[in-house]
Amino acid sequence: MSKQQRDALDALMRGWPLDLGGELTTQRPLMQQMMTSHPLPEDVTTEPGELGGVPVVTVDVAGAHPTRVLLYLHGGAYAMGSAAAAAGLASELSRRVGIRAVSVDYRLAPEHPFPAALDDALAAYRGLLDSGVDADRIVLAGESAGAGLAVALMTAIRDKGLEQPRRAVLLSPWADLALTGASMSDRAKLDPALTADALRRRAADYLGDTTPMDPSASPIHADLAGLPPLLIEVGSHEILLDDAVRLAARAARGEVDVTLHVTPGVPHVFPGFAAALDEGAEALDRAASFLRAAFAT
Amino acid sequence: MSKQQRDALDALMRGWPLDLGGELTTQRPLMQQMMTSHPLPEDVTTEPGELGGVPVVTVDVAGAHPTRVLLYLHGGAYAMGSAAAAAGLASELSRRVGIRAVSVDYRLAPEHPFPAALDDALAAYRGLLDSGVDADRIVLAGESAGAGLAVALMTAIRDKGLEQPRRAVLLSPWADLALTGASMSDRAKLDPALTADALRRRAADYLGDTTPMDPSASPIHADLAGLPPLLIEVGSHEILLDDAVRLAARAARGEVDVTLHVTPGVPHVFPGFAAALDEGAEALDRAASFLRAAFAT
Repeated sequence: MSKQQRDALDALMRGWPLDLGGELTTQRPLMQQMMTSHPLPEDVTTEPGELGGVPVVTVDVAGAHPTRVLLYLHGGAYAMGSAAAAAGLASELSRRVGIRAVSVDYRLAPEHPFPAALDDALAAYRGLLDSGVDADRIVLAGESAGAGLAVALMTAIRDKGLEQPRRAVLLSPWADLALTGASMSDRAKLDPALTADALRRRAADYLGDTTPMDPSASPIHADLAGLPPLLIEVGSHEILLDDAVRLAARAARGEVDVTLHVTPGVPHVFPGFAAALDEGAEALDRAASFLRAAFAT
Repeated sequence: MSKQQRDALDALMRGWPLDLGGELTTQRPLMQQMMTSHPLPEDVTTEPGELGGVPVVTVDVAGAHPTRVLLYLHGGAYAMGSAAAAAGLASELSRRVGIRAVSVDYRLAPEHPFPAALDDALAAYRGLLDSGVDADRIVLAGESAGAGLAVALMTAIRDKGLEQPRRAVLLSPWADLALTGASMSDRAKLDPALTADALRRRAADYLGDTTPMDPSASPIHADLAGLPPLLIEVGSHEILLDDAVRLAARAARGEVDVTLHVTPGVPHVFPGFAAALDEGAEALDRAASFLRAAFAT
């Protein structure tokens, strides 16, 4: 274990200027800048496009399988982030799986409240199917709000009678917009990245007039029957820890094959720091191994 | 997935004569008979002995590493079962790890209530260390009550200042003797093996005058700091589902590396049916892979 790396990351995050609950006019460019501060590796190419009328960024790594796709939903509390800014993490995961990634630019709140993000995710998935990529060649991943959105997407896919992607990886899912997890308080001091106040403001932006109990906004309340195998990765230093735990418990109620892995001492979406954190690289390896198994048979 | 196998196992278990909450004079021999109805494979040898004054059964599989040990704690709600009767499952797991198993005959309730079982487990662990097997050569596994006991054992190991075993696998842990999990009711009809009434009777046998909130009896209330990496395997058709979920959440609070895997549609301690259930064999493979990693470095 990498105590020194974990401590360094914790200190770094506590010093970050980003305020997830701040004014979007200043915070959005800041997040974009932070997430793209490291250039993509030289063998990664990105290509803007659209799927089902939704803007996407196709992320290719040299040598990757071009007809198997990791559909990727970025984070940013439904109000920030972008498909392009997530290309780094998406490519680190897709590289390990050996397939192409497609990162979705779903519309953001508060300009486009619930269910705009879900509508776009579903439209992009349909568009991917319509482009000739069968569901059995698709796996799904999301981080933070994007992981909650990924779960809502799979319930929508089921409800529309479409075929599911083969597996899904959920990195630090935000799955309870009412913020009722015990970890919201008992992990508060340990979490260097998120606060309940910030999430509360962004939840209000996304929900508009929708109740946080809506299962498509807070999938810990959703019927998860029919979902494909799920791998949930979360750190113990997250106020969202219990979102992950309760999502696993909910998936079990839906008779879904679900694995929850909690890595001690690491923060929100820690696989995004794989370059500087052994635990992050290990989580990406686990996630990739889990996703690769979708194509083994 | 093996729908036919799962259905057959469910029907088999519903027809079983064993009543976990019944009279021990009749149920103990019945459980012994059921658990030993299949002879051990020809390459498995068992040898009774003792460790730290506690009776044990050493289980060897041809070709296994004799100086690495899987310490195994059997199930039976603290009132039934035996080290020898668990040799089948212990050997299936230790065979996959490639090491020796030592199954512990801790004393049973109600003749020997809490903390007799824990005292014996700790004495056997100490005895194993004293026999010259270093902690870095030991991994731990338990099923049902034995998995809850394994967690209590590791907290005792920590509190006594002993070195921990390297990893632990917990199969369908019984970790809340107050039976407060939501799964106690919402999984009741789906669970072909256990009932809350039966567990309540056996909890009373084990607890005697001890409160079910005692963290050494119900480790979902224990401080789990300092425990080694844990893998928890549970089925979705278990009233003990939430014991597994809450144990994972509790371990996360202790900054423990913990993996929870929920297999849909399978009952209590389903890896015990690996010969007739694909999901059982897969769980044993996962558990063995997890334990083997303890010896990789």
